[in-house]
Amino acid sequence: MPEFLELLPPLKALEQLLENLDYRTAAETIMSADAVGRVTTAPVIAPHPLPSFPRSTVDGYAVRAVDTHGASESLPAYLALIGEIPMGAPAKLTVGSGQCALIHTGGMLPQGANAVVMVEYTQSVREGEVEVLHALAAGDNVLKVGEDITTGAVVIPEGVKLRPAEIGGLMAIGKTDVVVAKKPLVGIISSGDEVIAPEEDIGPGQVRDVNAYSLSALIEQVGGIPVRYGIAADSLETMYTTCLQALNENDIVVITAGSSASTRDLTADVINRLGEPGVLVHGVNVRPGKPTILGMCNGKTAIGLPGNPVSALVIASLFVVPVIHTLLGLVSKPQQASISAVLSINLSSQAGREDWVPVKLSSDDQGRLAEPVFGKSNLIFTLTRADGLVCIPADANGLAAATLVEVFLF
Amino acid sequence: MPEFLELLPPLKALEQLLENLDYRTAAETIMSADAVGRVTTAPVIAPHPLPSFPRSTVDGYAVRAVDTHGASESLPAYLALIGEIPMGAPAKLTVGSGQCALIHTGGMLPQGANAVVMVEYTQSVREGEVEVLHALAAGDNVLKVGEDITTGAVVIPEGVKLRPAEIGGLMAIGKTDVVVAKKPLVGIISSGDEVIAPEEDIGPGQVRDVNAYSLSALIEQVGGIPVRYGIAADSLETMYTTCLQALNENDIVVITAGSSASTRDLTADVINRLGEPGVLVHGVNVRPGKPTILGMCNGKTAIGLPGNPVSALVIASLFVVPVIHTLLGLVSKPQQASISAVLSINLSSQAGREDWVPVKLSSDDQGRLAEPVFGKSNLIFTLTRADGLVCIPADANGLAAATLVEVFLF
Repeated sequence: MPEFLELLPPLKALEQLLENLDYRTAAETIMSADAVGRVTTAPVIAPHPLPSFPRSTVDGYAVRAVDTHGASESLPAYLALIGEIPMGAPAKLTVGSGQCALIHTGGMLPQGANAVVMVEYTQSVREGEVEVLHALAAGDNVLKVGEDITTGAVVIPEGVKLRPAEIGGLMAIGKTDVVVAKKPLVGIISSGDEVIAPEEDIGPGQVRDVNAYSLSALIEQVGGIPVRYGIAADSLETMYTTCLQALNENDIVVITAGSSASTRDLTADVINRLGEPGVLVHGVNVRPGKPTILGMCNGKTAIGLPGNPVSALVIASLFVVPVIHTLLGLVSKPQQASISAVLSINLSSQAGREDWVPVKLSSDDQGRLAEPVFGKSNLIFTLTRADGLVCIPADANGLAAATLVEVFLF
Repeated sequence: MPEFLELLPPLKALEQLLENLDYRTAAETIMSADAVGRVTTAPVIAPHPLPSFPRSTVDGYAVRAVDTHGASESLPAYLALIGEIPMGAPAKLTVGSGQCALIHTGGMLPQGANAVVMVEYTQSVREGEVEVLHALAAGDNVLKVGEDITTGAVVIPEGVKLRPAEIGGLMAIGKTDVVVAKKPLVGIISSGDEVIAPEEDIGPGQVRDVNAYSLSALIEQVGGIPVRYGIAADSLETMYTTCLQALNENDIVVITAGSSASTRDLTADVINRLGEPGVLVHGVNVRPGKPTILGMCNGKTAIGLPGNPVSALVIASLFVVPVIHTLLGLVSKPQQASISAVLSINLSSQAGREDWVPVKLSSDDQGRLAEPVFGKSNLIFTLTRADGLVCIPADANGLAAATLVEVFLF
């Protein structure tokens, strides 16, 4: 497919890629304590109810509700205090008619009792006697067995990215290990005859490899494992050999082109040679990132990113991240975190093309302001000066100053 | 200080804690490739300019601008093509009067040339000759040396959390290592006679330790290292001994109380005994989380969290996370990611108290909806069913249905 003959909008391009993507990473069992950020591959089922015993939700006295009927501040019910419920163990006592027992939040309701009166609604004038100033119904201030979770309930569905709350939930039901998707391996190949490794001294005409490292960091952040294959020389043979090895050893291959048009064409040739069907999308109607290449090679994803560092990161967010999410089997994609702010100046764009503009956030009396960060060069330091990206949709000619925009943080 | 005599609003309570906090973690030098999420402790200075050579920003021909003066589609300038500029190396040729050289995006401008004409504004009818259809000024489509970054410029300030873009930036200037703040060590002590380890079988009246693990996951996510000290028995001596060890071995100590009032009082006693000044804040005007204890013991932070799992996570976000950020020396706190949504129902609250309500997000034709997740028990599974938290400010009696709210994702 020749470059740029047909430029797809980003969402359409992504759809085309995902339609051709029918593999997932394998499952593995890991310690729940280490599982934050990982994605479940099977529902987690409660092996027992929660709470597992009738539990007081307040500090107070366990009573028989019937004994408090009609009780009020002017006409208290008088109950005999027969003891205290220990924490973490069943009570040895039974609450009989006209009796009560001291109980703490989380304590186990003793035999005979069916409600708990809050300490605030009692007074104790004589030793061994409690005055209840308040009528109770059976079940008041008591959590029944299974009221939070019943046996067999799905407590965490399949395809969920585990947050601190879910890690706690696993512990609550005694699941100290959990089945999750293996982290996708993402092979990264840099190219471009002008590109050298970051540790090398820079000569005339040379630039250091930025993309392999910024992409690695992004891939790590979203739950993948980056594997760097260094800088391949700008020849079809070398590129092909390196990419084939990467394709065999990883779940996804990402190639960052040099900045010239010729190395971008090389990327497309390599992806076509790596396997069927090869290049699916060549060129996307987005700025930055027009020369994006999306491909599928013998059942594995291969993506060619533009060489410009800003473009590479923006395009990786739009295409590599969703592929990682898909391989992990994420069911509901994580909500993209954003912040609304007011645009500081007019931004123009070309209708029909989606634009992503780096902005810096600031606050003044009027609220939060999004100030576009321009760099003639559009190099990586444009992004380091920015807090997030604003999208100008394809159907707009731009955005007017003072428009309320969503800033997607990166 | 007796419990709850004076309930501070959360922001005031945090201020009081941070005013007493005057230590930071030490600095360490690590590989830049491993530094995403870490915080710089010193500004990063550019050792050389970027670009380090005059660089073409387009694919086209390097020219002397003066040779194109007056050129137009109807009256092109005719230039002799004398060669091609290699990528990654200086040109061996010099562009003389009436001459041009093929150059690619990112290529080094050759001697003699001072502008680049885009290939789109040229045509080539005869071999060895290029017709330029467009007049150029000196500097057009050329990035000068240092135009992106000058030598000695601060490319990343101190106190910045490194994102993928900054990792790329470090590589661009050859900084393969970087000085960052050590991750704060956070000692976690669980208490409560009813609390057992997650791997144990649950007996009557017992609950498994949820908080130590959900807090560990949260601490890891925000850049700390959790160190768990297990479950201390509910006695002043045992608690004190365990907490003292944790205080000596960590930068912060977090104690999660059992659910009864007596273990919360115990936490305050322990913090007071651990060192001067001891408890600074006892009780915060927030729901959930009223029984929060903030302390400073011989120059280290000690925080007592409520035993309820939802309260513990919410309060850790409000107090433990800012302490970690402060120890890391973060200058501008990370923008709290949020999503705006419309509240589905009325939420009432007590004026004077700040409420945090778990909500689930959904979308319908009208837009994004935030549906409060209620649980009588307020146990951890309330949070696993939610996407984020909505804050009802202290000066409100609640929030009306259809109000636009910010949902803070967790």
